[in-house]
Amino acid sequence: MNNFSLHLATKVLFGQGQIAHLASVIPADARVLITYGGGSIKRNGVLDQVHSALKNYTLFEFGGIEPNPTFETLMKAVEVVHNNKINFLLAVGGGSVLDGTKFIAAAADYVGETWDIVASGGKSVTKALPIGAVLTLPATGSEMNAGAVISRKETGDKQAFHSPYVLPRFAILDPLTTYSLPPRQVANGVIDAFVHTMEQYLTYPVDAKVQDRFAEGILLTLIEEGPKALKEPENYAVRANIMWSATMALNGLIGAGVPQDWATHMLGHELTAMHGLDHAQTLAIILPAIMRAKKTQKWEKLLQYAERVWGIDRGTEDERIEAAIKKTEQFFQQMGAPTRLSDYQLDGSSIPALIKKLEEHGMTHLGEHGDITLEESLKIYQSAR
Amino acid sequence: MNNFSLHLATKVLFGQGQIAHLASVIPADARVLITYGGGSIKRNGVLDQVHSALKNYTLFEFGGIEPNPTFETLMKAVEVVHNNKINFLLAVGGGSVLDGTKFIAAAADYVGETWDIVASGGKSVTKALPIGAVLTLPATGSEMNAGAVISRKETGDKQAFHSPYVLPRFAILDPLTTYSLPPRQVANGVIDAFVHTMEQYLTYPVDAKVQDRFAEGILLTLIEEGPKALKEPENYAVRANIMWSATMALNGLIGAGVPQDWATHMLGHELTAMHGLDHAQTLAIILPAIMRAKKTQKWEKLLQYAERVWGIDRGTEDERIEAAIKKTEQFFQQMGAPTRLSDYQLDGSSIPALIKKLEEHGMTHLGEHGDITLEESLKIYQSAR
Repeated sequence: MNNFSLHLATKVLFGQGQIAHLASVIPADARVLITYGGGSIKRNGVLDQVHSALKNYTLFEFGGIEPNPTFETLMKAVEVVHNNKINFLLAVGGGSVLDGTKFIAAAADYVGETWDIVASGGKSVTKALPIGAVLTLPATGSEMNAGAVISRKETGDKQAFHSPYVLPRFAILDPLTTYSLPPRQVANGVIDAFVHTMEQYLTYPVDAKVQDRFAEGILLTLIEEGPKALKEPENYAVRANIMWSATMALNGLIGAGVPQDWATHMLGHELTAMHGLDHAQTLAIILPAIMRAKKTQKWEKLLQYAERVWGIDRGTEDERIEAAIKKTEQFFQQMGAPTRLSDYQLDGSSIPALIKKLEEHGMTHLGEHGDITLEESLKIYQSAR
Repeated sequence: MNNFSLHLATKVLFGQGQIAHLASVIPADARVLITYGGGSIKRNGVLDQVHSALKNYTLFEFGGIEPNPTFETLMKAVEVVHNNKINFLLAVGGGSVLDGTKFIAAAADYVGETWDIVASGGKSVTKALPIGAVLTLPATGSEMNAGAVISRKETGDKQAFHSPYVLPRFAILDPLTTYSLPPRQVANGVIDAFVHTMEQYLTYPVDAKVQDRFAEGILLTLIEEGPKALKEPENYAVRANIMWSATMALNGLIGAGVPQDWATHMLGHELTAMHGLDHAQTLAIILPAIMRAKKTQKWEKLLQYAERVWGIDRGTEDERIEAAIKKTEQFFQQMGAPTRLSDYQLDGSSIPALIKKLEEHGMTHLGEHGDITLEESLKIYQSAR
């Protein structure tokens, strides 16, 4: 096991009805800005629940935080913060609202060029407004981690930053809020959480048995519950298991003390940026391709994955690994995400341009060994056609 | 899944050499009281490491916190705190040092009768000195939870209290510090962590898949690594896996949103109090007896435990359950803890007195269903002869 530092400081209130307890976790004298996205929280009653729980508070609202939240939009929210002496941010939504709110929190009292928050990767952040979260879309884990991805229209940048100051103070996870999600978002969330887990699991063994078993537990849960969520959208237990899996998949717990990969995310990001594919769709395409391309390097963990997650224990080692990759593809397909570029009407002609983008973004040595070079990425994209 | 609130706020620094980073987690102007037990930390060099990491701090020491820490001893430490204007407590040791230090922290500025901290179960605590921990004995999970068990010689009381104010701010877990533990303490720690996990797992299903898989992951790790720790005391990976398992077993994570039992601990406590058996020895005796006595109530989880933890999937359901109980007993025996009262030269003649003690302590409705009455406890003790 590698050395690690882990601080899971976000307080979690989990379960139906927990939104009603918001006042127990926000200071009574707070001037609260409620941040949200496209307005689904108005239609499904979540915003009403928030207002009702906080009826004695001074509340403001900022809606319209887009998927892949932009600097341009978020700076308008910073203005609202300044104009109204906001001292608490309550993000109500999914990963994009959470990520955007983290930026607003860091930007509120930031001295200097605000974009430096992102450009510095978060290192320049020395304080931030306190944030709380009411999660409505299980997927990114942003509700219990200190990271955010922010885009900038003007320059076409899309970049992550991390700072302990923007870790949410609390996260309210009520599975009922996820009943009204469109199936595609449900599926995307399950795939995203699955691949977050794989990025921290499918590397090489460091004899970290608890982390491995926890990761396998999350994968097994998502495999069992993901398809059920599509068939039985109002099955509470299913929704609850998915919601808790997604938070656990990226709050730092399973990644503590183990190598991490993240190449699937990096190669996927370029597909989203260039072709507008959903983030989860890109993961469903790239992960199996990387599993095959890095088979030798990931051999031992692939065998462990085959046996413990898919129950595959017959055949040669190579056959078991290939069977596990096929099972992974079938799972993504079952969740409605095809696993080939051609399934999305992409013939591979943009691959050189994708590689150029990877190079521009400094993604020249990816993976847990840093051995996924541009040449290797080219092969991976090609094998995914 | 049941509703839950979970706050894992302790920052963890895990791995060899982490003690050297103590200054990064204690305020520079702190006046620190280092608390410890019988002095093994002087012999194994851990205290020297602490001093060397904190050479720029104003340090005080309080040793001699006994196993089952007493009010009488701890009140002497409170005096040291007052006399020296201590504003930070650094517990260096195992569960007893941790628990004792939590009491000192709560008692330091307590207004009123100090024993009320314990008598109120911690409810009367409204503040406490900050605590940090350097763990040297993986077992109780006290380094990452808000509970403590305190004894009082004068009255013979032994009682738990819980307060969020005494949750350690940080815990340093360096597996190297555990190399010099006597085998019996290693074994006891593994059994304690195993049974902590079982108390939160072996109840009835509430469709909490992540929690179940995490609990099973801890159990599997302890089963694999426990015996190895006895055979290869300087195997770092083994020590690391046990240390992380023990913390995860009782920091709230696997118990969040699921029913809990704790009857094994309660019946075991009386055996320790009356006969001086090690805590872990009592657990090794009582758990298998409870598994048999409550077989019907725990049927589904027993089958799941048999299959997922011991790989038992053949035979009638009853046979599988009995096989899993036998495996559990063999595991405890393998760790050096026999599983019958008679193995400890107890013939059962004290059972009526044990039941009387349970009654005195209000332990009349134990277990996840509250159906382990005194009559039932009597049968459990008898079946464990």
